[in-house]
Parts: sequence; C-alpha cells; structure tokens
Amino acid sequence: MTQHGSRKSASPITAEDVARRLGVSQSTISRAFSPTASISEKTKLRVLQTANALGYQPNVIARSLITRRTNIVAIVMANLTDPFYPVVLDALAQHIQSRGFQTLLFVPSPGQALDDVLPTLLQYQVDAVVLASATVSSAMARDCAERRMPLVLFNRYVPGLEVHAVACDNVAGGRRVADFLVASGHARPTFIAGEAEATTNRDRQRGFVSRLSELGIRSCLIEEGGAYSYEAGYDATKRLLRQRKRPDAIFYASDVQAFGGMDMLRQAGIRIPHDISVVGYDDVPLAAWHGYGLTTIRQPIPQMVEAAVDMLGLGHGDHLATAPTTRLILGTLVERSSTTERPGSARSKNRR
Amino acid sequence: MTQHGSRKSASPITAEDVARRLGVSQSTISRAFSPTASISEKTKLRVLQTANALGYQPNVIARSLITRRTNIVAIVMANLTDPFYPVVLDALAQHIQSRGFQTLLFVPSPGQALDDVLPTLLQYQVDAVVLASATVSSAMARDCAERRMPLVLFNRYVPGLEVHAVACDNVAGGRRVADFLVASGHARPTFIAGEAEATTNRDRQRGFVSRLSELGIRSCLIEEGGAYSYEAGYDATKRLLRQRKRPDAIFYASDVQAFGGMDMLRQAGIRIPHDISVVGYDDVPLAAWHGYGLTTIRQPIPQMVEAAVDMLGLGHGDHLATAPTTRLILGTLVERSSTTERPGSARSKNRR
Repeated sequence: MTQHGSRKSASPITAEDVARRLGVSQSTISRAFSPTASISEKTKLRVLQTANALGYQPNVIARSLITRRTNIVAIVMANLTDPFYPVVLDALAQHIQSRGFQTLLFVPSPGQALDDVLPTLLQYQVDAVVLASATVSSAMARDCAERRMPLVLFNRYVPGLEVHAVACDNVAGGRRVADFLVASGHARPTFIAGEAEATTNRDRQRGFVSRLSELGIRSCLIEEGGAYSYEAGYDATKRLLRQRKRPDAIFYASDVQAFGGMDMLRQAGIRIPHDISVVGYDDVPLAAWHGYGLTTIRQPIPQMVEAAVDMLGLGHGDHLATAPTTRLILGTLVERSSTTERPGSARSKNRR
Repeated sequence: MTQHGSRKSASPITAEDVARRLGVSQSTISRAFSPTASISEKTKLRVLQTANALGYQPNVIARSLITRRTNIVAIVMANLTDPFYPVVLDALAQHIQSRGFQTLLFVPSPGQALDDVLPTLLQYQVDAVVLASATVSSAMARDCAERRMPLVLFNRYVPGLEVHAVACDNVAGGRRVADFLVASGHARPTFIAGEAEATTNRDRQRGFVSRLSELGIRSCLIEEGGAYSYEAGYDATKRLLRQRKRPDAIFYASDVQAFGGMDMLRQAGIRIPHDISVVGYDDVPLAAWHGYGLTTIRQPIPQMVEAAVDMLGLGHGDHLATAPTTRLILGTLVERSSTTERPGSARSKNRR
C-alpha cells in the first residue's frame, strides 16, 4: 500500500512486484497482459486487479521488441465522410479491440498514393494491415508478403493479385436486385454506376445486367455515375431524365448515390415509387430514415469484419499458412417504401 | 545495388548503411525520420530517397524506448455513426499525420467507461490523447497529469476540471440562432434539446434562451430530446406537435436531430419553412443535401482541430508548460432553405 500511495516519486512498479504480491511467476503476469496467451480467466482477473491496485502498467512497446508483436492492426481508410465507411470502421475497430488488439488508423490525404503510405505504417511494426476504401499495387503486395505482413483488402479485391480480400458478393447482389425488380413488374430498369474502376461497381453492374438478360430484358440503360457520392447520384439522375424514354426503376451502385437521385427525382416532380422505383446498395443507417425509406442490398458488415480479422490470423500466425483467398459474402435485400409492385407483376399475380 | 537486390536474404539495412552511402552522420539519418527534428528539406529528401532505394526502414518502436516518444496520438471516439464525428475524425487524423504523427483510434464499446479505456492506451506509450465524444473523470485527468500525458477534450469540456479543451462557442452559437430567428420575424421559437448532460447541449440551450429573453421573448418552449440522434429528433418533434400551440420555428441541438424532425414534420403535412422554420447545429455534409437544405450553425472544425493539436504540444513539450485552458471558437450561421422570413420581420422591413 505504501508503494501505491507513493508511486509518483518511487521507482516504477514492475511485473516482479506484482508477481511477488500474488505469489505467482513473472511469466503469469506477462501472460495476463497478452491478448493471445493461454491463461485462465480467473487468474487473469486477479493479476489485472492487483496490477491496477499497485499501479503497474506493462510497456507493450518495450515488450514488442522481444515478441516482435505490437498488438496493433493498421486500418487504411479514405472516404470517411461517405456514410458507409464510418459504419465499417466502427465495427472493425471494436472487433479488433475485442480481440485485445489496437487500431492504428491511417487516412490518406486526397490524391495520396497508397504505396507512399504503407512504408510509414511498416515503420510502426504493426502486426497486420486492413485496406478499406483503398487499393494496393502489386509491388506493395509483394513487399508485404516478403515481410510476412498479413494484409487484407476490405470491400474490394484486385483481380489477379495474390492478396487476401473480403467483400460482399456484389455480383450476387446485382442479380438479386434484377430478380426483385422483374418479379415486381418493372420492365425498363436502369443502372446508375459508381466509381467506374472499382470492383464493387463493376460486379454490381455485371450481376444486374446479366441477370436481367437471362430474364428477357436485354436492353438495360447504363448511366455513368463516376463516383460514389451524393452529387454524382444527383447529377447522373438529372442527365438520365433528359433521355426520351423514362425508366420505371433505377438501381444505384450505392446508397449515397440513391439519396442524391431521390432528391433529384422529387425536385423534378417524379413520385417515388409511383413513377420510378429506386434501389440502392449498402444499407447505411440513412436508408432507414423516413425521408428516404430506401430498398437496398444490406452489406453483411459484421460477417465481413469477422472474416477479415480471421484472415489476419492475429496472434496465431494462421495467415501465413494459408494461400491468399478472396472471400465473398452474400448480402440481403431489404425492402422499404422506395419500391413498389407494378400492375401485372409476377408477385401480384401469385397473390391472387 | 547488390544490397538492394538481395535485401530479402541479407541482414537488415541499418541507418549506418544509409549514412555511409550518403557520406553523412547517423544522426542526420535519424533526424530525417523524426517529424520534429531540425533538418533542411533538401537533406531530408536525399536521405529518404536513398533509404528507400536501399530498403532501409527505421524501427520507430525501438527508437521510442530511447526517445520516450512513439509519435502516436490516441483518439478516443464513440458515435462514429453520427454524421458529425466522421468529419471530425477525418480532419483530426489528417492533421495529426501532416505533423508526422500517427493516430491510434479507440472506439469504446457501448456502455464502456472511459476510465477502463485509458489504462490500455497508456500501455502503448502514446504521446498524447484526444478525447472526442467521450468525457473523462477527475481521477483519470489527475492520472494523466501525473504521467505528464497531454490530454485534450474535443467538442466538450468538464466544468471545474483542469484539462485542456477545445469546443465551438456553443453559447454564442445559441445566441446567434436566437438573433437570426427573431430578426426574421419568428415569434414562437422552440428548442429541442440533445443529450441532456452534455455541455454542447446545455450551452446551446442557454445561449438561445437567454438571448431570446433579451430580445423580449420570455417563454421559449423546451422539448427534451434525450440524445443526439435522428430518432430522438423525430420522436421529440412528434411529441411537440401534440401541444396546443404550434411553434413557428424549431432550433434543434444538432443537425441529425433536425433531419429526424424535418422528416416528421413533412409526414404530418407541415410545410418547411412555410409553416415552421428549422435550424440545426453542426453543418454536417447532409445539411447541404437538396432534400434537407438545413439552416444551421457551422462548427469550425478545421480551426478546432488545429487548436486541439496545438494544445497537445506534439514534439515540443509546450503542453506541459501551459495551464489547462478551454478554447471556444466561434461558429457561423449558414442560411439555407429550411428557414424563411415571416411577414413583418425586421429584415423584410429593412429591405423596403
């Protein structure tokens, strides 16, 4: 107790002090503070309580020099102001913390190439890297592999690149929307694309268009959006409305574009869903707001996060043993008020 | 060049190798990699290019044991799914990075007390802590002070607590809204509160109500919101509409509540701003969307971020020399389509 009261001036409390107080070995103290070590919950709690009472704090940084582990996972994430990514970050950070690790967040500045970012992160000897809303060059992927640095791409993959990746099954999601719109009687669906080069956009478009074709709709109008943003959705919808033939449904490559599109349609006096049905992709919290009520594909974020963190093999070295894989997880369609059944649809017929 | 080609198998490149190649001292190499060291831009660039060509990477973690600096700033942030905080995080992380530091992000799980979080962060020997959307107990503030750990509260302060804090001047913001609504002819303004105990909420309310009183409006209806959320704004507005007397303007303690309120008002067939003007607080990106067009107080995030990072005294130790201060920065009113001038307002009279 004297030690506790005078800890400001006395020399720092060491693991040895805690071990002596409890009558256990120093390695027990060390295991209690290691997120992946084998130790009973009861012993761990006793150690943590005593350590806290004595004012002991392990220096994980110093320990990392011996274990070669910092227990830090780096997340690289741009587009924080897109409503989708904060939800991902919230889930990722909490999941990483729940496994006893910490998150080093890197937000690239606009136009900053990822190949300039990774060397900085590697200086911090992080245990693993999650790349969300950012992509990686093959040179950098090779560099990480050489350093045996676990790396996972989140929400995208790079075709032909030997890197772990987790994403929603975007082809299946696009197909699901096609099935849904055709079953509810839509005959003139349009796709408004997002970021042209992103796998998310290309896969959603490919799934949608190919399934429509299988269902007998061979001419699906594609309007380029150019970006996953509110403004891009608004502007693309404005261009679309100048066309001679008006669609009866619009599938936007992302929710945030759909919000821009819905605001444009309403300004133009077009009723949703009476005149045009609207479908998005992501199911961000705003999609459920009364002002939008957007039918959309829900990305399975909890499962995607768990799969990504599993792939990193934190503390187990599993990552190194497995060949790079791309894991695609099915999303689900969430039906809200932005879509309706057209007269004579398959669904309305079935109901009679 | 042989070194470069064979770096996988050879022993790691050291600072000595880089120094030898350039014909400079090892301390020059060290300074080139230290964000706060004095070194010419030209020399720094030469070192970084050569280091990169040779494949040299300083181990900042190992160095931290000598310098007692990790060059890591911890940010504690909950409420990532509130549209305000991702904007703050984006600005904070980029600003911290631009000063050569990295960000350790901690997202408390729901209900997790901050006093349980800080000991974990302190294990990582971070150089400083920014607490955003989280508050701190006096015991923990004392603990940080004893460890000489720079700590800044962002967007809130704790009255009576000796801790650095940066926030928008919320009293002045509330007063500004009162001035604006009265000048534009509103006679029955209402305040819908946010998180009851937060200084942000109390200060906005206090400024609004006291200024209204000075302007001759002594009875301002207050409706408790309970939380800074869309649902809270929606529900409070629903309760408000059950009152006998309808307001002609509603000031919401935050934008996200105002969005919920606007969606409720529209569902009830109330026209914005024709029947009721709506004002928010924050100026999140959504406030500018066509579907909302929300008049609001813009929080000066770039200035708030800069002030917070300055207070941390990163790499300078300035923080330790200055007494804890609370810095309040003025916001600005951004006028959009959710407000209008009532007939006979001071502004419309001036115009004639």
